[in-house]
Amino acid sequence: MKSREIHLVRHFTGAVKPEYFTLAEVDLPEPAEGEVLVANEWLSVDPYMRPRMAGLKTYIDPFMPGKPMEGGAVGKVIKSRSGALKEGDYVMSMLGWREAYVAPAKGLMKVDANLLPAHAYLGIAGLTGLTAYAGLKRIIGLKEGETLWMSAGAGAVGSAGIQFAKAMGARVIATAGGKAKTDFCLEIGADAAIDYKDVPDLRKAIKEAAPEGVNAYFENVGGDHLVAALDVLNQFGRIAACGMISRYNDETPSPGPHNMTNIVTKSLMMRGFIVTEHFDLQGEFIKDLSSWMMSGKVKSRETVYEGIEKMPEAFTGLFTGANLGKMLVKV
Amino acid sequence: MKSREIHLVRHFTGAVKPEYFTLAEVDLPEPAEGEVLVANEWLSVDPYMRPRMAGLKTYIDPFMPGKPMEGGAVGKVIKSRSGALKEGDYVMSMLGWREAYVAPAKGLMKVDANLLPAHAYLGIAGLTGLTAYAGLKRIIGLKEGETLWMSAGAGAVGSAGIQFAKAMGARVIATAGGKAKTDFCLEIGADAAIDYKDVPDLRKAIKEAAPEGVNAYFENVGGDHLVAALDVLNQFGRIAACGMISRYNDETPSPGPHNMTNIVTKSLMMRGFIVTEHFDLQGEFIKDLSSWMMSGKVKSRETVYEGIEKMPEAFTGLFTGANLGKMLVKV
Repeated sequence: MKSREIHLVRHFTGAVKPEYFTLAEVDLPEPAEGEVLVANEWLSVDPYMRPRMAGLKTYIDPFMPGKPMEGGAVGKVIKSRSGALKEGDYVMSMLGWREAYVAPAKGLMKVDANLLPAHAYLGIAGLTGLTAYAGLKRIIGLKEGETLWMSAGAGAVGSAGIQFAKAMGARVIATAGGKAKTDFCLEIGADAAIDYKDVPDLRKAIKEAAPEGVNAYFENVGGDHLVAALDVLNQFGRIAACGMISRYNDETPSPGPHNMTNIVTKSLMMRGFIVTEHFDLQGEFIKDLSSWMMSGKVKSRETVYEGIEKMPEAFTGLFTGANLGKMLVKV
Repeated sequence: MKSREIHLVRHFTGAVKPEYFTLAEVDLPEPAEGEVLVANEWLSVDPYMRPRMAGLKTYIDPFMPGKPMEGGAVGKVIKSRSGALKEGDYVMSMLGWREAYVAPAKGLMKVDANLLPAHAYLGIAGLTGLTAYAGLKRIIGLKEGETLWMSAGAGAVGSAGIQFAKAMGARVIATAGGKAKTDFCLEIGADAAIDYKDVPDLRKAIKEAAPEGVNAYFENVGGDHLVAALDVLNQFGRIAACGMISRYNDETPSPGPHNMTNIVTKSLMMRGFIVTEHFDLQGEFIKDLSSWMMSGKVKSRETVYEGIEKMPEAFTGLFTGANLGKMLVKV
């Protein structure tokens, strides 16, 4: 069987360009004993993939040029030579950026496509949702009645986080770029939404939206957002540092926040985290999520591109703000 | 009775200059019922006083021009009209920057000048020591066998922290400015001491002194130190942000660390703190400190200026690096 997959052409810094990716056709082997053949149906693109394309060793290995890239994917088992999975089962894997693959069954996670739509396992019920949940629950320790500022509120993690924070009883100020996005943030429940591209002074806009101050900031952006957060946070404010997408395409380092002394004078806490460190929250997460989804408090939201050849475009779109909610590619 | 005290002439930014302070002579009233007259013997100068001189409201009110400044002080009760204190008792107060004062007894803390020398209550056994202890114990959670980088290692908090961290079983890399200071850091137990004024690349110097990486950074300095810390910290590294003395005299904001994304990619934690938030550790602190001092693991270290008129000079000296250990003025 033939499959198409996206390879990285070379490591790069700076803006993402189409020529850094190539679509390759490969022949898949027959599954060996214990292996399955899976046809991917949904592929995920995520900001954390960016440093892997630069050849940087972070918490995860860099992508290798000339090889298929990895990423979250949900697919259907087409052939099975394993007792653990049968044809028709849905599985989640990190073997994305390809239409189909052959792999040992034991490395794949079976998901229930009757309980939730298959693609939700890449979004609100998957690593994206768990990321938002871990940031709010464990890193920030969000309490009922507190005010949260969610940056990149229309993004995958941001839109999950807005809904979760509301379900936890917090007041939520969202920021996003452009009216379509701030409208989306309000639609999913944010109490206020600020278009950071349309305000002359982000700090002032946040202060107006949260006159009683901000207790916690969910950091997805970096740069001027972090500067404003250090200024508007109340004493004992907490920052969950999930990502800094504004920095990932920097070719030369940008200066950091000039107001770091606020961390001392206001006893602020800032903690970076990676979802993989918080898998122990999975049980609690699914319990809360099911209850929130059944009561209609939380919904799955995504932007979908069609066809594997659209993967680079979908990925690039993360940096130009093309997505509302989770960005997915349907194979 | 006459007393002399130091007044702030006006709020200021930028470098500290002698003309911002004036020595005033005042007449003290007789103690009223419940009050005592105290002659200060030891006065403390501390970096946290600097923002108060700029008129900034931080976690503590600004100093007011034309009024005596406040600060840690230990003195002897000369007259008492309170049952709680008798003549000859030693008390610690925040009524420093003056030779003597009259105040209600209930706002003063009696200290045992037989157990420890009176000045130790302003240093290793006082807020300075508790600051170092809270940073290591609670903010960092320092564990035996870990490597700590203590910045401003020859300072009051730094020199206490180096000794405490060694007593806790950690490996300690100290930084300080000048050979006299690095020698002092080594003398009090640091495993390695780096003169940051004498190395072309602070990050490289730290990496060489800690080839296995750094688990925790005690931040007293800010600026290039913090940049280097974000680079050299291992995954899950913790930063106790106690102060950023390099920034306090800034007239215009300096750019912050360009490498803040390390907080995300290495899951670092940075938390600011003020000693007053951690008074609940006092009992545990005194217990550990007594045991460490009795076994000779920890010693009180100070630099002493004589005469209240030397207060501004002693304070200014904090920013030019004039002190080894705690900076004190003996009245």
